Amino acid sequence: MPIPSQVVKCYKYIDSQQKKFIEELRELVKIPNISSNSSARNHVDSAIKWLQARLVRTGFAVELKNTHYKTNIPPVILATLGNDRRKKTLLYYCHLDVFKVQSDKWGADPFVLREEKNGRLYGRGTAKMKGPLLCFLHAVDTYQALGINLPINIKIICESMNECKSLGIAEMLQSLRTGFLTNIDCMLMTDGQWTGNTYACILYGCRGVCYFNLTIEGLIEDLDSGEYGGIVQEPLQDLIYIVNHLVDKSGTLVIPGLDKDMAQVTPDEEKIYSQLKLNIDEYRKDSGIRKFSHDTSLSQSLMHAWRYPSFNLHYVNTVPPCECPVNLKIPKTAQARFSIRIVPDQTPEKVCRLICDHLNNVLKLRNSPNRARLRMEDSLRPWIADYRHWNYEAAKLASRQVYKDPANLVREGNSYRALLEFQQIMPKTNILLLPLVSGEANIHKDEECITLRCYMEGTKLIANYFYNLSISQ
Amino acid sequence: MPIPSQVVKCYKYIDSQQKKFIEELRELVKIPNISSNSSARNHVDSAIKWLQARLVRTGFAVELKNTHYKTNIPPVILATLGNDRRKKTLLYYCHLDVFKVQSDKWGADPFVLREEKNGRLYGRGTAKMKGPLLCFLHAVDTYQALGINLPINIKIICESMNECKSLGIAEMLQSLRTGFLTNIDCMLMTDGQWTGNTYACILYGCRGVCYFNLTIEGLIEDLDSGEYGGIVQEPLQDLIYIVNHLVDKSGTLVIPGLDKDMAQVTPDEEKIYSQLKLNIDEYRKDSGIRKFSHDTSLSQSLMHAWRYPSFNLHYVNTVPPCECPVNLKIPKTAQARFSIRIVPDQTPEKVCRLICDHLNNVLKLRNSPNRARLRMEDSLRPWIADYRHWNYEAAKLASRQVYKDPANLVREGNSYRALLEFQQIMPKTNILLLPLVSGEANIHKDEECITLRCYMEGTKLIANYFYNLSISQ
Repeated sequence: MPIPSQVVKCYKYIDSQQKKFIEELRELVKIPNISSNSSARNHVDSAIKWLQARLVRTGFAVELKNTHYKTNIPPVILATLGNDRRKKTLLYYCHLDVFKVQSDKWGADPFVLREEKNGRLYGRGTAKMKGPLLCFLHAVDTYQALGINLPINIKIICESMNECKSLGIAEMLQSLRTGFLTNIDCMLMTDGQWTGNTYACILYGCRGVCYFNLTIEGLIEDLDSGEYGGIVQEPLQDLIYIVNHLVDKSGTLVIPGLDKDMAQVTPDEEKIYSQLKLNIDEYRKDSGIRKFSHDTSLSQSLMHAWRYPSFNLHYVNTVPPCECPVNLKIPKTAQARFSIRIVPDQTPEKVCRLICDHLNNVLKLRNSPNRARLRMEDSLRPWIADYRHWNYEAAKLASRQVYKDPANLVREGNSYRALLEFQQIMPKTNILLLPLVSGEANIHKDEECITLRCYMEGTKLIANYFYNLSISQ
Repeated sequence: MPIPSQVVKCYKYIDSQQKKFIEELRELVKIPNISSNSSARNHVDSAIKWLQARLVRTGFAVELKNTHYKTNIPPVILATLGNDRRKKTLLYYCHLDVFKVQSDKWGADPFVLREEKNGRLYGRGTAKMKGPLLCFLHAVDTYQALGINLPINIKIICESMNECKSLGIAEMLQSLRTGFLTNIDCMLMTDGQWTGNTYACILYGCRGVCYFNLTIEGLIEDLDSGEYGGIVQEPLQDLIYIVNHLVDKSGTLVIPGLDKDMAQVTPDEEKIYSQLKLNIDEYRKDSGIRKFSHDTSLSQSLMHAWRYPSFNLHYVNTVPPCECPVNLKIPKTAQARFSIRIVPDQTPEKVCRLICDHLNNVLKLRNSPNRARLRMEDSLRPWIADYRHWNYEAAKLASRQVYKDPANLVREGNSYRALLEFQQIMPKTNILLLPLVSGEANIHKDEECITLRCYMEGTKLIANYFYNLSISQ
């Protein structure tokens, strides 16, 4: 299918604006609006004001909306462009706030955009989400600058608490349910990143997560192991025994009933995996992993990272934490933190119950007099989208036309809290996750960057997607 | 067998001196000679000077001997009383230094002797070893005061580094081998304590110990569990898997070959256990243990504490220790410290080799790409004495006559470093461990004490033992 002429015009305009686009990214990156840093609240507010003015200039109707969930949460930006009943209405969710920085680990100031010869633009927020947000806005600008009628209506929700567990977003969406969020045809998020640096991707699923604190206690005080070793059941030994009995030798979860709710792999899904274009050596090398734990095919490895549950152990220690690792005491209390990544159609509640039952059985069979306390600290549901929906089809076509290659259809191991809240409020609305940055982006890490290629082609991708949305069905 | 008249005279004299004996304990407890506290070195020296003068007054020939092992180690006191070739020569090993204190956990100043109405004398060192050492000296005094010819020759070695792993003692003993340590017929230590508060005991064996640091490493950095959970073999999971495979469900060590070297229980030994007078409920309650791990008889429980090897896990953590237990990272490195209490005829070297082999096998079967490093940090050999030796027979008779009940013949779970050094240097000399304090003594803990009964009867016990030694064969 040839690229429509108005989209080709968009491409040309976008190419001509490169310098201007970079300057705008520089302007936005300069604001150190770290949401987790309460003393940066003025910067959070500056960024909001900046975007508000920017959207108004572009023609959006803009409202700053405060949540009633908790005071001191920065307002959410609600913006609307177009109200043509003959056009589809796209909801774009994004955020302005950035992740905290450890400045000493950066080669230069994280809030001064650095263009390097390797084609990368470094700076906190370049990849998440200031860069992709600007791609979206520049795509809108492009239609307007060329005098081409924007083929869709657009609504934007932009928050500034994304890096703080999207605090307040659930209550905000609830309050917008019968107002701002009506008449939405589909939704776009530009979260995520490509698997590797070469092939673009479209995201259609995420694992959820439940994380737990397990405490075993039973002794009144730490005991001398010379005196009591051999006759007392140690809480720390109970703990590692129990935790170790959550998985088999290969690390696969062995909790009875857990796999019953897991959506089975379909032939369609297998086909998706078989079509993935990925360099597994590059993938392994990027992560610094010498050998994947499942010594199988690329498809199987990716399934283990994306679509099977996994068990992760983050922390084991005594309570209070052992200050002196040279003593030979039997610690009276021990604690572990572990998480389970869950997948469709598992729910955190059911998984928590199965684990509780299993742990109690293991402890009972061990015949220990010690007590176990399991607490689920937090959870996120898994998510999966209908990747055959016209919203996805529009993105697939746009991606193929921009990147000259079909996009990888991928899932992710990590979940997105805001996404789940949208899904909860608008269960029938298709949500597209369209990552604009490549694997080298270092999201949430030091030396975060967006490549100039991703920045420019991301803008073209969105412009093309707008067009395809308007014609897809 | 009736108590000989000269011993009865000793008893009477000892009873008449109670006030004076308590005052002398008060005087010695007052010196805060904590060997682990380098700023208390002047107190360590004061105590040595005090004992030197005290021994000279009693008629001992005294020498202060410095070790060449390391400078700054306080001198050892060597004392000799009597050189009659027709008498046996007893070597008494003891120490002056005391264990560190956490003053805020004591009801009053740990270095001011407190006589309480419950019959206890509280103060650091009352039980280990200032109290028992004075019992020994008072027994010598008693013979002299009564003009009774001391029936044995006595040599004393008193060190001041016992609470610091007896640093320097090995080199010291080596240097004394062909001099001071010749012509020794038997040896006495007054270390240890009764099992419970009612029945006196004689100690004839101790478990040894080997302790290990196990490190598992394999990742370049901590990884995000959302991204890599399911495809990376976690060092911390490897660690708990491996450690968990050192023992079976009941906590019994399952290292192939380990039990091959273990001395088997003999009918004689079984008889000793069956004759023990012990209140198991009191024993359990004192330790704050609700239920022993081996749900069997008293004999079996005591065998698990004294004569079977045991596995103890002291510490598991990530490296560096996790500061933030709320993160969901996969830690790149994990570490554990565990110890194995070993028993006759096991050796630390062989045990270490068996554990190394076993760990490597477990890791290999697990097919992990991570690396394990096992290091034996330190070890003590197990010890067992011939409890049918005339040295023990003398103590058994003395104990029965003083306490009106046969003493329990016991072993201990913990080892004594100095004891092992003596055994190494004088492998043919029988060493008697004769605890003078009851189970309530709180050795190495807060509110250490000796009961007035133990203090006075301990003196009688030693006086009686001197006599029995002279006639036993």
